[in-house]
Amino acid sequence: MKIPHRLNLTEEQLPTQWYNLRADMKEQPDPMLNPVTFQPIRTEELYPIFCEELAAQETNCSTQWFDIPDEVMEIYKAYRPSPLNRAYDLERYLKTPAHIYFKFEGNNTSGSHKLNSAVAQAYYAKKQGLTSLTTETGAGQWGTALAEACAYFGMDLTVYMVKGSYEQKPYRREIIRTFGANVIPSPSNTTKVGQAILAANPDTSGSLGCAISEAIEKATSTQGCRYVLGSVLNQVVLHQSIIGLEAKRAMEMLGEYPDIVIGCAGGGSNLAGLIAPFMQDKLLGKKNPHFIAVEPASCPSLTRGRYAYDYCDTGKVTPLARMYTLGSGFIPSKNHAGGLRYHGMSPIISKLYHDGWLDEARAVEQTHVFDAAVTFAKVETILPAPESSHAIRVAIDEAIKCRETGEAKTILFGLTGTGYFDMAAYSAYNEGKMTDYIPTDEDLEPGFASLPKIPGIQE
Amino acid sequence: MKIPHRLNLTEEQLPTQWYNLRADMKEQPDPMLNPVTFQPIRTEELYPIFCEELAAQETNCSTQWFDIPDEVMEIYKAYRPSPLNRAYDLERYLKTPAHIYFKFEGNNTSGSHKLNSAVAQAYYAKKQGLTSLTTETGAGQWGTALAEACAYFGMDLTVYMVKGSYEQKPYRREIIRTFGANVIPSPSNTTKVGQAILAANPDTSGSLGCAISEAIEKATSTQGCRYVLGSVLNQVVLHQSIIGLEAKRAMEMLGEYPDIVIGCAGGGSNLAGLIAPFMQDKLLGKKNPHFIAVEPASCPSLTRGRYAYDYCDTGKVTPLARMYTLGSGFIPSKNHAGGLRYHGMSPIISKLYHDGWLDEARAVEQTHVFDAAVTFAKVETILPAPESSHAIRVAIDEAIKCRETGEAKTILFGLTGTGYFDMAAYSAYNEGKMTDYIPTDEDLEPGFASLPKIPGIQE
Repeated sequence: MKIPHRLNLTEEQLPTQWYNLRADMKEQPDPMLNPVTFQPIRTEELYPIFCEELAAQETNCSTQWFDIPDEVMEIYKAYRPSPLNRAYDLERYLKTPAHIYFKFEGNNTSGSHKLNSAVAQAYYAKKQGLTSLTTETGAGQWGTALAEACAYFGMDLTVYMVKGSYEQKPYRREIIRTFGANVIPSPSNTTKVGQAILAANPDTSGSLGCAISEAIEKATSTQGCRYVLGSVLNQVVLHQSIIGLEAKRAMEMLGEYPDIVIGCAGGGSNLAGLIAPFMQDKLLGKKNPHFIAVEPASCPSLTRGRYAYDYCDTGKVTPLARMYTLGSGFIPSKNHAGGLRYHGMSPIISKLYHDGWLDEARAVEQTHVFDAAVTFAKVETILPAPESSHAIRVAIDEAIKCRETGEAKTILFGLTGTGYFDMAAYSAYNEGKMTDYIPTDEDLEPGFASLPKIPGIQE
Repeated sequence: MKIPHRLNLTEEQLPTQWYNLRADMKEQPDPMLNPVTFQPIRTEELYPIFCEELAAQETNCSTQWFDIPDEVMEIYKAYRPSPLNRAYDLERYLKTPAHIYFKFEGNNTSGSHKLNSAVAQAYYAKKQGLTSLTTETGAGQWGTALAEACAYFGMDLTVYMVKGSYEQKPYRREIIRTFGANVIPSPSNTTKVGQAILAANPDTSGSLGCAISEAIEKATSTQGCRYVLGSVLNQVVLHQSIIGLEAKRAMEMLGEYPDIVIGCAGGGSNLAGLIAPFMQDKLLGKKNPHFIAVEPASCPSLTRGRYAYDYCDTGKVTPLARMYTLGSGFIPSKNHAGGLRYHGMSPIISKLYHDGWLDEARAVEQTHVFDAAVTFAKVETILPAPESSHAIRVAIDEAIKCRETGEAKTILFGLTGTGYFDMAAYSAYNEGKMTDYIPTDEDLEPGFASLPKIPGIQE
């Protein structure tokens, strides 16, 4: 069969259910713990933070498939199915026998895959009769996506944007505002936790963990309001399974199956969504693809973090999750461009990695990432987001290996978004001003020191 | 038939030929004139400016279909066919019985339809053995598209960017640079014409006409170099016919035909490309769609310009084209945000409008345009470019008329690009700082005074 450059499934082929990876895992991720009692958290205990339907999805380890509500399908159809591209030009450029595919999630105004979960979360909140949401955003992709979703459903939204991004990315901030959301640089004086962080460190450029603390405080202290998060959580992983389900279906139509699946990993939602149905095949013993998670060398939660219970935020108000983490006190270097700067990793991804199902994690340095990004842009005419370019880097590396060994492997990677709002980072790269940063073990110590002690579980 | 939210043609359904509208026009546009002899220009006289194949396309009024070269098809397939969207959410929001469709050209990194002609022009230059190109860019969409195309084919590129845009849109400049092009703010000291303009008006923020003069001077004084233009020209209109051909084919598959076709018009390439096959139907007496060109009230070439021979540039070095024009000396107000700021209009569009085939031109004010843009963004989750939003404005107006009359008209408009790089303009709008500007007749006088006098033709 002649494989097209881009395969767009039809609207009828759009999946109508999300896949819950936990239902097929041999061992479950350890349960979230109540941060006060250290007991496994019950679904109802999450209601003050999440709307009920999302709380139920968060704790549901057994339901394999969740119907996607009609109202969510309605927005999905405006930008999905997303295309599966064959990178013919990149293959020629690399002179590789590998077949390189990428699932492109940048073709919507939010510019990334984040919209997939944003519309679901906004919908369930609306359905419950809530009137407003809060969230945090770092690089800005999630904030944009959620602002779009809230504009669509008529929900108010407050976004705590990591101060460093807020200042460096005025246009990202502006797009969120254009969709009607209120954007506040974090840490801020609008919350007690923000005030405390500012008192301790007035010059901080903020962190995701800190912005999460503020968003949760705001949500739990406001009538009709809940908090939503763009990655890490099980519910987000569930929604993002749409990426992998479409990719797998498209590859089946082409008579292809990936030998290697590569995704960038910050909180893990894109990676988990992309690999979900392929991981199911592996868990059920049907296939054995090789999974690679790619993270920044400057924020190496999988490759250098500890598999431990930790808070999801800096203010230590969230439930505790067992995950690979650098400690909630970790703040990435200012040198670090783009997203993928969260201290922890999705508990599902962490568990799969810990148990060996997710084969490999690689940390890459940002100048190498931008080398790959610019090559990809010139050859494939798509300017990728820095986050996505982590996956491109490793896809190129694997394709070069194939050139050397002569193996025609099938490589699939996730191209999560476009780099339109990252031109300051590209500018630094173009001018030779971008540098790498690999934290020393000493640099990582304060983060690890912030890990909680839990009697009988984690001393 | 159930009409999907987005119809993506398959790769096999991608048109393999461009359609030359001139072949079916009842009367041809007046010929370009040599700016020295005032005689109709011969194809060979264009060779110092354009590569031979493009010069031939420019002057060919009789060939109905041009095969798209395989090398161009190869890039088209990386981002085309572009989707045809049914704006169900906008229809519901407006409570209109109209069927609203839009052809979305923003799903590629250049962010607009400009890439369709950029890849063709870069390819033909490469094929002729040329090594470099020059061009101008205003809002930046064309510069980005051409930089991508040149990166792909390995051509050097110098972009003269209108100084106002260069300064206000650093990220647009940076994306062009990321694709390897040299970006120079215009007017500049790198050309004689730029030096002369700067001497006369040191504080000018530049204009497209001025940047064109510089790009042409650079091209004609450099070995192995030619000039390329992103709109206005017949060759560009030819390449952009791919938009309309895809749109028509997709609508046929849905059993639809537009009653109204709406496009924004700056130089006219998008409008001409979108309407091309529908205009053919009208010219051949098969159908009678109503065509509307939408332009900014601040740069009203169709609605308030003169149908006259004029230079395509400020420096008066180009051939003369007969078109609707405000005069090559016209410089749009600084108040004007976004593109659509060229003093003239495609000779093909001008002729069709003059002869009544293009039914209507409307000038709209920019605050009204941004009202429509933000509504559209919130309802359809796509943040449109300011240029494209001119078409959205009129599509909404027409749909509201349908609500009032109860007519279920089928409306098709061109959504030419995304607004990612226009957040400064959105910011001004969001903060209530955007104003309108309608030039008085007196304001337009200096432009008209710059129109050339041609003995026996235009006194």
